[in-house]
Amino acid sequence: MTEKKMLNYILAVNAGSSSLKLQLFNVTLKSGTLVPNLRVKSSVSNLSSPPAKFTFKNYSGENYDTTDENLDHINSEIEAFQFMLEHLKSEESGVGRGILGEITHVCHRVVHGGEMGEKGPLVVDDGVLKQLEEIVSLAPLHNGPADLILRAALEAFPKATNIAFFDSSFHNSLPDFIRAYPIDQKVAKERKLRKYGFHGLSYSWIVKNVAAFFQKDEKEISVIALHLGNGASMCAIKNGQSYDTTMGLTPLEGLPGGSRSGTMDPSLVFHYSSRPADSDKVSSVELSHAESILNLSSGFKALTGTSDFAEILATDPPSPESTLAIRLFLDRILGFFGSYWLKLNGGRGCVDAVVFSGGIGEGSSVFREMIVKGLGGLDGGFDQLDHENNIKGGGDGDVVYSIGDGGGETRLLVCKTNEELEMVEECLGNKILWPSETTTRVPAVRV
Amino acid sequence: MTEKKMLNYILAVNAGSSSLKLQLFNVTLKSGTLVPNLRVKSSVSNLSSPPAKFTFKNYSGENYDTTDENLDHINSEIEAFQFMLEHLKSEESGVGRGILGEITHVCHRVVHGGEMGEKGPLVVDDGVLKQLEEIVSLAPLHNGPADLILRAALEAFPKATNIAFFDSSFHNSLPDFIRAYPIDQKVAKERKLRKYGFHGLSYSWIVKNVAAFFQKDEKEISVIALHLGNGASMCAIKNGQSYDTTMGLTPLEGLPGGSRSGTMDPSLVFHYSSRPADSDKVSSVELSHAESILNLSSGFKALTGTSDFAEILATDPPSPESTLAIRLFLDRILGFFGSYWLKLNGGRGCVDAVVFSGGIGEGSSVFREMIVKGLGGLDGGFDQLDHENNIKGGGDGDVVYSIGDGGGETRLLVCKTNEELEMVEECLGNKILWPSETTTRVPAVRV
Repeated sequence: MTEKKMLNYILAVNAGSSSLKLQLFNVTLKSGTLVPNLRVKSSVSNLSSPPAKFTFKNYSGENYDTTDENLDHINSEIEAFQFMLEHLKSEESGVGRGILGEITHVCHRVVHGGEMGEKGPLVVDDGVLKQLEEIVSLAPLHNGPADLILRAALEAFPKATNIAFFDSSFHNSLPDFIRAYPIDQKVAKERKLRKYGFHGLSYSWIVKNVAAFFQKDEKEISVIALHLGNGASMCAIKNGQSYDTTMGLTPLEGLPGGSRSGTMDPSLVFHYSSRPADSDKVSSVELSHAESILNLSSGFKALTGTSDFAEILATDPPSPESTLAIRLFLDRILGFFGSYWLKLNGGRGCVDAVVFSGGIGEGSSVFREMIVKGLGGLDGGFDQLDHENNIKGGGDGDVVYSIGDGGGETRLLVCKTNEELEMVEECLGNKILWPSETTTRVPAVRV
Repeated sequence: MTEKKMLNYILAVNAGSSSLKLQLFNVTLKSGTLVPNLRVKSSVSNLSSPPAKFTFKNYSGENYDTTDENLDHINSEIEAFQFMLEHLKSEESGVGRGILGEITHVCHRVVHGGEMGEKGPLVVDDGVLKQLEEIVSLAPLHNGPADLILRAALEAFPKATNIAFFDSSFHNSLPDFIRAYPIDQKVAKERKLRKYGFHGLSYSWIVKNVAAFFQKDEKEISVIALHLGNGASMCAIKNGQSYDTTMGLTPLEGLPGGSRSGTMDPSLVFHYSSRPADSDKVSSVELSHAESILNLSSGFKALTGTSDFAEILATDPPSPESTLAIRLFLDRILGFFGSYWLKLNGGRGCVDAVVFSGGIGEGSSVFREMIVKGLGGLDGGFDQLDHENNIKGGGDGDVVYSIGDGGGETRLLVCKTNEELEMVEECLGNKILWPSETTTRVPAVRV
């Protein structure tokens, strides 16, 4: 496999719940397959717990420094994007205006696809922009940042094709009785109120790479996947498709996260208002405030003061607050695990693997061990935890690695997720987005 | 065992989500044990889908007719109570003012105990009344009817001891990490925002009677109990105590029901308002309306037009709406089942039994079969369903009966729940409520 010719550059932009991540690739043709080669990886994180942290690494092989510094003046995803663009333009970054001008595709992760999410990735034109705007009004907290960044990118890269990838698209396969909330279905259809599910780029990446790990077709893979990060969710994946997932109409439902409450009694929001005993009215200001509290000031942050779960796990000696947060998170995870285990049949080997992913799922061997211990009672034929591998982690080139002894019908795996590369690979494998001879899905890449 | 002497009368009052049930007992002493003898059983049901239906049966052995008629003019629990009182006073009922005057105890089921629920049953005095009033402001939809009835009973039976039994008390044993919502714990404590759980009288009855069925101590009994009625919930019972349950701060959380949505994305309530795209304010009137919609106009009623699940199951041929409602309910039940199965360890025989109860749980062999089929994949050592027993049901005197073949480590049981008798038995076994030599818990009664 020799590199034939440099084709073009793709920029992948990923605005998360408290971070912005960029990856820049150039695309080459190797043995008839389009291959993305990582040139730059950069992020601004800790946006919800300042100071923001900036990292930048140039992979071109030349001797550029890796940047890792705190930023006092960056408070939002759009500010982070503008800052990162400026850095990319600078000579210091080793990229510069020349290469930026060769970017032909900008891939954007958009959390909520609404009904557009059913169509998969969409090239952003005026019509799509307008529809995206409507979704922002449905999910301002989740789509707002990506919408601002998308507009800034349209301006910064006027010649490039901007593509919106929806984090909800992977869940188009949810059965109707899981997708529906038991409310008036006429109202539900009008107001688009149903389970959407999120973290779809990550789950799509997991399916593809776990299938490669097993050397099976994606349609032969059933797993329970745990994407545990600042935003956390789980997915019951049956024959390569989403059967159920913890997030719902918005990312608020399901597991708690760094600053999100997760599932609670739907009545609870009414009690954030101080309702007078003799009135059935609630204050609108208080209630709008409640939505923001449940998304931005709840979860681990509310329980312990920090949204960083690694810090909570490391609290030594454990405080009552850190203990409560860990036990509560573990309880909710095991609850959904048991639920999905049964929904995927519940028999020995009903899933090929339990897959850990996301910042906590990939980063914390201690927490993985707690979860695996919690599964111990199930007569499910799981791998035994391989304590050494669990602590050591995978090799640099391993996207998927085993933390089990390999003796079980259900394997214990870690998958290093890569939402940015998932978008790029989907872009390269899609004739409409990237016209070429190559329309087969890009195989799992071990970078 | 010979009847020694008639002691006194106890009236049990149970205001549910769409019904009011009364039972009148006289108490006798048999072999040193206080025994409640059923004299009258009466109910007004279908309050949420008029016309209300009135039933009345006098068990005194004399030849009184059983009443079973529709009532056009009764629209609320308090109207039902006043109507039933008038009927009890009448000669026609075979009870009359004389016997009513001998009622020494009136037991009231109060749904939400708030913090009072931790103290167990309470004799209603001015202080308790005041605290109950505060809880009504916390949970107006759920405690309102019982509060009105309690006040009416205090007036109607001025000499009797009125006792409030809280449907949340059984769940005092919830671990703190299950009880807590991941929100600011200072706010949570101030506003009393946590999981309470309900249907506690029913679960208490189930534990007592399932223990008797197995001839074991209550503390040796672990079961997954399904109370499936117009209001539906499930409970993971570990060593006789509640470990987790589906309902939460209010009965809205968890499973859907006749008119309740159950768990949904906490964000969903904000979307019942028509929020303008350029405003972060929501209409207070709309939102207060949303709480009422989720409790009173959602669930099966919203999906199919009727809140009567038996009618939905009987729809022939099945409509798309009835199919959706059945599959959705089944999915949510199996989801919680898997969750509780794992939380209770998940190994073979981790629970002694799966217990079906409540109107649907006791009444629908078809739906029980669907659920048992859904458990089939679990390597759990369940009974096989005994189809004949499942359809035939238990004998008249059986509070608990088996619908399994008895070969499994986990039995399949039906328990005919009796919240009114549970209150009366708790009253008789409690020295404070019913001063007597007998303070041992009244054994399971097979009436």
